[in-house]
Amino acid sequence: MELKKLWDAKQMKTVRFWRAVIGETLALFLFAFVVCASTLPWYSTEMNSSKILIISFTVGFAIATLVHCFGEVSGGHINPAVTLSMLCTLNIGIFRAFFYMIGQCVGAIGGAALLLAITPEEYRGNLGVTLVNDSITAAQGFGMEFMLTFILVFTIFSTVDPKRHVTGSQPIAIGLAIIIDHLIGISFTGASMNPARTLGPAVVMGIYDDFWVYWAGPFAGALAAAWLYVFTFGRTLEDKNEDD
Amino acid sequence: MELKKLWDAKQMKTVRFWRAVIGETLALFLFAFVVCASTLPWYSTEMNSSKILIISFTVGFAIATLVHCFGEVSGGHINPAVTLSMLCTLNIGIFRAFFYMIGQCVGAIGGAALLLAITPEEYRGNLGVTLVNDSITAAQGFGMEFMLTFILVFTIFSTVDPKRHVTGSQPIAIGLAIIIDHLIGISFTGASMNPARTLGPAVVMGIYDDFWVYWAGPFAGALAAAWLYVFTFGRTLEDKNEDD
Amino acid sequence: MELKKLWDAKQMKTVRFWRAVIGETLALFLFAFVVCASTLPWYSTEMNSSKILIISFTVGFAIATLVHCFGEVSGGHINPAVTLSMLCTLNIGIFRAFFYMIGQCVGAIGGAALLLAITPEEYRGNLGVTLVNDSITAAQGFGMEFMLTFILVFTIFSTVDPKRHVTGSQPIAIGLAIIIDHLIGISFTGASMNPARTLGPAVVMGIYDDFWVYWAGPFAGALAAAWLYVFTFGRTLEDKNEDD
Amino acid sequence: MELKKLWDAKQMKTVRFWRAVIGETLALFLFAFVVCASTLPWYSTEMNSSKILIISFTVGFAIATLVHCFGEVSGGHINPAVTLSMLCTLNIGIFRAFFYMIGQCVGAIGGAALLLAITPEEYRGNLGVTLVNDSITAAQGFGMEFMLTFILVFTIFSTVDPKRHVTGSQPIAIGLAIIIDHLIGISFTGASMNPARTLGPAVVMGIYDDFWVYWAGPFAGALAAAWLYVFTFGRTLEDKNEDD
Repeated sequence: MELKKLWDAKQMKTVRFWRAVIGETLALFLFAFVVCASTLPWYSTEMNSSKILIISFTVGFAIATLVHCFGEVSGGHINPAVTLSMLCTLNIGIFRAFFYMIGQCVGAIGGAALLLAITPEEYRGNLGVTLVNDSITAAQGFGMEFMLTFILVFTIFSTVDPKRHVTGSQPIAIGLAIIIDHLIGISFTGASMNPARTLGPAVVMGIYDDFWVYWAGPFAGALAAAWLYVFTFGRTLEDKNEDD
Repeated sequence: MELKKLWDAKQMKTVRFWRAVIGETLALFLFAFVVCASTLPWYSTEMNSSKILIISFTVGFAIATLVHCFGEVSGGHINPAVTLSMLCTLNIGIFRAFFYMIGQCVGAIGGAALLLAITPEEYRGNLGVTLVNDSITAAQGFGMEFMLTFILVFTIFSTVDPKRHVTGSQPIAIGLAIIIDHLIGISFTGASMNPARTLGPAVVMGIYDDFWVYWAGPFAGALAAAWLYVFTFGRTLEDKNEDD
Repeated sequence: MELKKLWDAKQMKTVRFWRAVIGETLALFLFAFVVCASTLPWYSTEMNSSKILIISFTVGFAIATLVHCFGEVSGGHINPAVTLSMLCTLNIGIFRAFFYMIGQCVGAIGGAALLLAITPEEYRGNLGVTLVNDSITAAQGFGMEFMLTFILVFTIFSTVDPKRHVTGSQPIAIGLAIIIDHLIGISFTGASMNPARTLGPAVVMGIYDDFWVYWAGPFAGALAAAWLYVFTFGRTLEDKNEDD
Repeated sequence: MELKKLWDAKQMKTVRFWRAVIGETLALFLFAFVVCASTLPWYSTEMNSSKILIISFTVGFAIATLVHCFGEVSGGHINPAVTLSMLCTLNIGIFRAFFYMIGQCVGAIGGAALLLAITPEEYRGNLGVTLVNDSITAAQGFGMEFMLTFILVFTIFSTVDPKRHVTGSQPIAIGLAIIIDHLIGISFTGASMNPARTLGPAVVMGIYDDFWVYWAGPFAGALAAAWLYVFTFGRTLEDKNEDD
């Protein structure tokens, strides 16, 4: 790994770079639309166990689907926290990271806005804005977002490691991590793990409560997982190849 | 791609062509039977979250299963909107497209009719006819069907692209897209995405409310996704191969 | 295919033959134990949508798991209807078919008996005996069991066809067909599709209502699907190889 | 297989050995955190069918995810019963087994403790401690834990056998076995199958009722399954290769 790779200005002259940026934008547009739609209060305004299953499977399978669709276009980050972890492990350069994040935020706001336009007012609820549960502190919310994103990003790094013996589908492996994160996290913080996913409905509805939790938690959890993988466990696979 | 390929009259002399047509007919027969059966009001005439899970998993796994069964027989379209998108991207010719659509509509009507025959009258409900939710406009319903089919067809084109590095099961990747589409779309429009699936129970029950939504929405969404993939994101995979 | 292959008396001298028979016995022992356990009335004696999800996922994933475990030992039939369809398409001989069916029935009775032993009396219900819904006729029940088993066995033949281009897991493909069959069929007939699975708890509880439905329906549906596949759609894959 | 392999003192000098031990520790830390979080009584203190679905999918997908993450680091046991079965089939040595078990227990206590710290007091319940249902005896509980662990470990040995023709994902195959075990076992014993998973919340909450059931049941079931596989069914695959 070399620090030089961070300066990727040259890539910006290629069509593929901008296709990737537009890919991330479209991915977040679809993702915010789908995720926020899964939270709409059609049958009950209260959260309950069946609704947690609906939201968890929707988000997990949405990520699996969008990684299927955009994985070979942009790498399929679909999350500024993942983009940051890829930047800080020298997998992508700063220009790519910067424009991905811009595209992700713009896309998420657009997806939430489209959902607002086709949803009747009485079933909008808060359009899937993520909020820290009233009975826990913001610090506990930060802890949960940290843990959820840690699990997600550690799974991503393990799964896409080219030194790994792959069996089965990488997008689905990542989707399953998303599902468990939602099954346990929705009741704490809404299980965002994704600053752009939080930003989209927040901008459209104008609700920014505990907003810092959804930026600090995912960014910190993603960096911790990425570095822990790269500097420790990922090394085991290298050694193994050397032995052979 | 050449326009000549659209004239596929010669294929009609092969057994395999007609096996494919009959395959699509049988696939829609089974699909309409299964999907409509999943909506029957056994325990409650009201929709609720558990029922949404039942319908969504049934339809998603049904598509995955039928693509397993008929994928190598007919391409496994199982949907006139998918057939149209394959025609308009020159993947199949006009005779194949025409007879597939006829077969799909006939099959779906047959499947719904069989279900009617073995279901007791008090549990028939409307036999799974798709209806636009009373609280949204037909235009909003069109928007939702457009988006749902867009996601489905974009996933299909991404997944079956031979230039892609495949990991995991293509039928399941497509099934997962169907599941998220249903989890979010059932409450809006019944999440048809498939004119033949809507036609089957509509003919059997004689209910044609907002019928145009289920033809215009899926056809428009499918074409938008197919063209966007073919002319934009799908190109990234070609470039990549050229680079190597 | 030759009829001579049906006379497999010579195989009976091998250890592997008897290991396969014991494998089918153990598989049905575990299967009947698991399936019947999933129906126990812990929280409500009435069927409801959440319970349908529990039973459907349990049975589908149980078949996927047992095919993982016994697929290479015995072929992983785990169902006399599947064994019959394999016999009638000349995939196995009559001695193998005969002893598999004996083992399957013995195993299923054993599994149901063990469950009885460790379940408190107040939560036994009918121990998962399959019954035709009171509001449908036995003929309608036969029709549903026919259709469910047709879908299952058609999926099995499509999935294990060695001429197919495999992507993804065969056991899971079969498990998904089981899940959709249960999601739609439990309310009609309990979604047996498997005479041994019906026999197990029936013997232990002494309940044999509409017993013929669970033998005639699955056997007829399995044969129809197997022959339709072998004589029609399966041929498409042969032709394709000839063309290339 | 040679008994000499059990004395693996030499391995303890490698970095990879200790990375594996720390991997098992971190895996159980995450596992106990996630599993216990899935049981929290957010919406109802009573168990019900939807909650069983939430817990079952959480635990099953958590094991699949952690095997994805740690499979190539430590073998991905994530369970002292699995470690014991690997030791008693001479797959690992005694030092590795000893330190894995220590790490697993320490990790599980840590994960439960972290969950305690970020969960509000009114939603803690018993933090996911596994308890034998009041209406069954401890012996029946032992029987259920034996059966559940038997199914799990038999699936693991079948799935990771290098002589097997793999299709699909091994971690997901194992996760599905976990899901069915939970769907049927939660109401009996909480479906632990894992002494460390039971130990974690037990230590943190100071609840040790019927504690022996969760050590004896999983250890006995795991050994029975491992030996049955190695000495019987696993041999079929060897024979097959000899025949070819």
